[in-house]
Amino acid sequence: MRPSGRTPDQMRAITMEPAFTIHAEGACLVSFGNTRVLCTASVEEKVPPFLRGKGEGWVTAEYGMLPRATHTRGSREAAKGKQSGRTQEIQRLIGRSLRAVVDLKKLGERQITLDCDVIQADGGTRTASISGAWVALRIAVDGLMAKGLLKEDPIVQKVAAISCGTHKGTPVLDLDYIEDSSAEADANFVLTGDSKLAEVQATAEGATFDEEELLRLLRLARIGCNEIFKAQDAAVSGATSR
Amino acid sequence: MRPSGRTPDQMRAITMEPAFTIHAEGACLVSFGNTRVLCTASVEEKVPPFLRGKGEGWVTAEYGMLPRATHTRGSREAAKGKQSGRTQEIQRLIGRSLRAVVDLKKLGERQITLDCDVIQADGGTRTASISGAWVALRIAVDGLMAKGLLKEDPIVQKVAAISCGTHKGTPVLDLDYIEDSSAEADANFVLTGDSKLAEVQATAEGATFDEEELLRLLRLARIGCNEIFKAQDAAVSGATSR
Amino acid sequence: MRPSGRTPDQMRAITMEPAFTIHAEGACLVSFGNTRVLCTASVEEKVPPFLRGKGEGWVTAEYGMLPRATHTRGSREAAKGKQSGRTQEIQRLIGRSLRAVVDLKKLGERQITLDCDVIQADGGTRTASISGAWVALRIAVDGLMAKGLLKEDPIVQKVAAISCGTHKGTPVLDLDYIEDSSAEADANFVLTGDSKLAEVQATAEGATFDEEELLRLLRLARIGCNEIFKAQDAAVSGATSR
Amino acid sequence: MRPSGRTPDQMRAITMEPAFTIHAEGACLVSFGNTRVLCTASVEEKVPPFLRGKGEGWVTAEYGMLPRATHTRGSREAAKGKQSGRTQEIQRLIGRSLRAVVDLKKLGERQITLDCDVIQADGGTRTASISGAWVALRIAVDGLMAKGLLKEDPIVQKVAAISCGTHKGTPVLDLDYIEDSSAEADANFVLTGDSKLAEVQATAEGATFDEEELLRLLRLARIGCNEIFKAQDAAVSGATSR
Amino acid sequence: MRPSGRTPDQMRAITMEPAFTIHAEGACLVSFGNTRVLCTASVEEKVPPFLRGKGEGWVTAEYGMLPRATHTRGSREAAKGKQSGRTQEIQRLIGRSLRAVVDLKKLGERQITLDCDVIQADGGTRTASISGAWVALRIAVDGLMAKGLLKEDPIVQKVAAISCGTHKGTPVLDLDYIEDSSAEADANFVLTGDSKLAEVQATAEGATFDEEELLRLLRLARIGCNEIFKAQDAAVSGATSR
Amino acid sequence: MRPSGRTPDQMRAITMEPAFTIHAEGACLVSFGNTRVLCTASVEEKVPPFLRGKGEGWVTAEYGMLPRATHTRGSREAAKGKQSGRTQEIQRLIGRSLRAVVDLKKLGERQITLDCDVIQADGGTRTASISGAWVALRIAVDGLMAKGLLKEDPIVQKVAAISCGTHKGTPVLDLDYIEDSSAEADANFVLTGDSKLAEVQATAEGATFDEEELLRLLRLARIGCNEIFKAQDAAVSGATSR
Repeated sequence: MRPSGRTPDQMRAITMEPAFTIHAEGACLVSFGNTRVLCTASVEEKVPPFLRGKGEGWVTAEYGMLPRATHTRGSREAAKGKQSGRTQEIQRLIGRSLRAVVDLKKLGERQITLDCDVIQADGGTRTASISGAWVALRIAVDGLMAKGLLKEDPIVQKVAAISCGTHKGTPVLDLDYIEDSSAEADANFVLTGDSKLAEVQATAEGATFDEEELLRLLRLARIGCNEIFKAQDAAVSGATSR
Repeated sequence: MRPSGRTPDQMRAITMEPAFTIHAEGACLVSFGNTRVLCTASVEEKVPPFLRGKGEGWVTAEYGMLPRATHTRGSREAAKGKQSGRTQEIQRLIGRSLRAVVDLKKLGERQITLDCDVIQADGGTRTASISGAWVALRIAVDGLMAKGLLKEDPIVQKVAAISCGTHKGTPVLDLDYIEDSSAEADANFVLTGDSKLAEVQATAEGATFDEEELLRLLRLARIGCNEIFKAQDAAVSGATSR
Repeated sequence: MRPSGRTPDQMRAITMEPAFTIHAEGACLVSFGNTRVLCTASVEEKVPPFLRGKGEGWVTAEYGMLPRATHTRGSREAAKGKQSGRTQEIQRLIGRSLRAVVDLKKLGERQITLDCDVIQADGGTRTASISGAWVALRIAVDGLMAKGLLKEDPIVQKVAAISCGTHKGTPVLDLDYIEDSSAEADANFVLTGDSKLAEVQATAEGATFDEEELLRLLRLARIGCNEIFKAQDAAVSGATSR
Repeated sequence: MRPSGRTPDQMRAITMEPAFTIHAEGACLVSFGNTRVLCTASVEEKVPPFLRGKGEGWVTAEYGMLPRATHTRGSREAAKGKQSGRTQEIQRLIGRSLRAVVDLKKLGERQITLDCDVIQADGGTRTASISGAWVALRIAVDGLMAKGLLKEDPIVQKVAAISCGTHKGTPVLDLDYIEDSSAEADANFVLTGDSKLAEVQATAEGATFDEEELLRLLRLARIGCNEIFKAQDAAVSGATSR
Repeated sequence: MRPSGRTPDQMRAITMEPAFTIHAEGACLVSFGNTRVLCTASVEEKVPPFLRGKGEGWVTAEYGMLPRATHTRGSREAAKGKQSGRTQEIQRLIGRSLRAVVDLKKLGERQITLDCDVIQADGGTRTASISGAWVALRIAVDGLMAKGLLKEDPIVQKVAAISCGTHKGTPVLDLDYIEDSSAEADANFVLTGDSKLAEVQATAEGATFDEEELLRLLRLARIGCNEIFKAQDAAVSGATSR
Repeated sequence: MRPSGRTPDQMRAITMEPAFTIHAEGACLVSFGNTRVLCTASVEEKVPPFLRGKGEGWVTAEYGMLPRATHTRGSREAAKGKQSGRTQEIQRLIGRSLRAVVDLKKLGERQITLDCDVIQADGGTRTASISGAWVALRIAVDGLMAKGLLKEDPIVQKVAAISCGTHKGTPVLDLDYIEDSSAEADANFVLTGDSKLAEVQATAEGATFDEEELLRLLRLARIGCNEIFKAQDAAVSGATSR
């Protein structure tokens, strides 16, 4: 039995509110249970120096956690004067995951920045961020297309992410904080709408694992991502029909 | 006529949601119209070095703004590696304002940190922060008293803050972003529940001002703060009766 | 009785030495009693990025304190690798105060930087800085006009600043360090030569205050600033007649 | 055909020189072809704050690249004043990988720091680092045991790492820089001496991938790691018999 | 002929004002012509970590330059967030030079920090700093002895410093800024009251130099330091007899 | 007798391996006994801002030490976020020393950066760095000439450096770490191939020194540099004939 009473292949409740904030070109407040992340997509008509004049766009991400998003207060990165290695690792992962489903040539010379800020944390903040950032990106790109700034859709697939892990010997889907703290192995999968893999990050925590275990976790991830894809569709439709 | 259609002495709608997040000892999502700030109070059983062993507590504040809280994206302070002068000025003001209504001796050797993070900005983020932070602080202190960790209430008054300014020659209450950008003079008042002043910060923007103008702005501030005090009472009662 | 033996409305001795250093376009070593601040005005024929090509100039300020300007040695900000929140707050105030009396369009596309470095501190360093910086600015602008680089005088008024506070229940003018440390309320006023207000910053220290108290402090500030305006006139005349 | 003329399952030449430097408790200059990394193990009889008094040890890693380890000079992180996200991600991976095969309780309250400094880069620096760091760690722990400071061996397994990727449609082992730059997918596997997985990091570069592809890359990784394990054994024997 | 009209072995006018500031345990405003440096000595009853419990003291120095000490404004190191290599090199030299004449065991477990802040620069700021810092140190130590905190005098010699250089083929004493900018070779000598050398730093600027040239510069330095020793004696006597 | 058994005027074994790494335009792994420094020369076809458009080149240096180059591990400067004063002082010395033998006008508008990274430290790392950097520079310039990018040789002399010091009353050549730690005086000499001085840095450590002592150390330095010049010639010939 999982601490939350969920079955091994049961996700937490997913919600996605695309209209949570008004200024960004795309936005989504995503919840995986008590984990809540505000994702915004900001469009700028310029690209980073290494891409200037190449006719290509860029998609990048930044990640942050409010100091009291967690059980005990963490120090504020802005006050410490640097982002932790964990923060940088996560924001690099989010950026790569979104770029895996975007045709940067079709985006044209503009940059879309996905800010993922964790309002409340209970495990799985990076996977919720990726899943919510896709919705924000989709809405922002829809806006560019509606304004005629983009002729072809640069987004080639949906992308979603979920964490799975082995908890007390059982492979389980969508770890919350309690499970995450005591999992023997822990994996984050980033999957695309056509059932392909964009990223796999599996880590031994208390014990090393084998190929079979990795595959079992992947199978759970497919279940979870299918559920997220549906929530993404609903959120985008809702945003569009507003 | 104000851009928003409000009368000169009309506040924007105020809302205060004390249960917006679950981990902090006290929390409040405060809105002054489209300005929304998440305020949390975190209690730690230790004090900063300069107070150790003195039997006194400390109340401090940190302030931040999500990168896309604003009309155009601002850079992330954690990524830049330092907090701006504006951020530091605001968080010092919030801390001073709250300490003005707390008896630090009665608080005992513990620190309460008020994190004010702007989710969405439309003018008046520092005054909304002070007003919401008081609610978070009140709830956190109520929790300490309920647990028997505090015998006497260290909070001696309510505290609220509001901005006023002269806009196109008319003194107006609770400036939104459009008004703030073009005000001739701009003042932030921090008032306590017994009608006293904790802080006055008045600044000439386009034109210097005189004593009479300062007093007219102060009179508007009293109207605004009375409304905020009511919202604070309601939010705290709601939180307590949950 | 005040610790210094002064009457409540008595300033400390003010001195302003415009020729204390030779390289800057304008300079003034200002003393308010034992508080001594070296103010220099540096003219550069370029403006910050946000003003380029707009035909307007900029006036900005930086503030610093020598490590042993104070009773006990403070750490050197350059060695710590960042300016404190207090330093940033003060330099922002100095910049705003001076810009309040300058017509930036008439200044043309050039920047004047006012460096205010505290050689010795005994309370009131920010108000001495503003008062001395105006002299440095005036001399620098006079130099630009003498060289024919400016046709119209961009300085529209004098500006001066003074701190007042309630000390042991009595409103007093020009707090020194001892008074400042134990004042119940403390206010800095920035006034212009035509008796208008450029900035008011009043803060409850030990006790909140009321409107009447604020006005009493403002009345003292007017007395103090009139004295400073005279010292500024004398310093500028002296500099000009050299 | 691979650019280097290697067959798909062919590693580059591996060399491991344990005596390359004299001061560290353990050292290994590891080469995977032209990629060369100096790994040192430094033993300190103290642990980080979060472990003090718990009777447990810690193994951590730091990673760096000499500015001209690469084809064109990169800027020096010490001069820029911060480590890149890539550097931090890699050093976190190295630390986790080594901790996966160490019983920290048996290590006692001491810390071993593995410094992995890239002298020359040609792809696969992180996997060479992990593989060489294990040799440095093994030698350092052998030293502690020889001195009687450790009674039981805290190292429970060998650990090695290798990168594999899909290059022009073919899964290949041990990517060099040219292959790495144009691979469609790229995976780093960290394997233990008993054929278990400590970490899998697979990333879509030009194209997403599927489960079968991941497994083919893993099969290649097993071939590579077996070869590395032999080189590690030889290096440790050589070091011991000196 | 030198630009200043001085003869090759002629120093600029030296002045040393020990009473320029009031808070420090020792102080000296030193001028070598237009170069003016405020040196203060701050005594703290604690030592840096590496000396704790060893019964020995420490003498250290920090150096800074006001932004407009120079002909054109330099950026403020506190604002840039780091001290330049030049600043660090100079403050290390000042600290070493003063420690060369102090018996740290006799100083006891206390630290004296010498802050050397350049108010106005015209060449030779580091040598003026060393020369003035000795006066500040001497006064601070005299104070400790007068209070009975030190029984034996820890200062074993006077120390002074001067720059010499080859300018248009002629060895000259005490370079000012114009000479320094165009000197072929440039040397700083730190001499003690008993005619010994504490430090020699000679650098080829436009041309390399030979042994004979180095010795000629040293001979000039002896002339200059003798003059500085006299000024130090006078300043200390003046301070003592106040 | 010296701790190493060397005679007072005996250098440690010098080796210079120009082919140690493959990417840089010039490289040299230099050893002075157990001190080993990897020097690389990187050519970039651009100059720093202060030289743009002046038709002149620039030669600069950066210095670093691997954390475990030393007897006990030092902290990594990249992780601490800043270079120490010692590091900056050394890299400035290396840059000046190399520029002393280069005609920057003949170099054309390009920059050569000399990276000196200490792999293993046993005293004299800065002098080994200068000596090895010259070899890397020579090889890089030879490459530019071979490609026809330079018509005239901009290197006007060889340059080498060595440390000498007074150890237990005896002047000795090429101090190793043990001698360096207990030397009474310590001097670094930078000499050019035509027997001239480019830099002298002599420092009293335990005792001040006199002119005669300085000259005895310089005589030893001439012996050492002659030996280094031969090793440089051999290394460059070897590199050229490859």
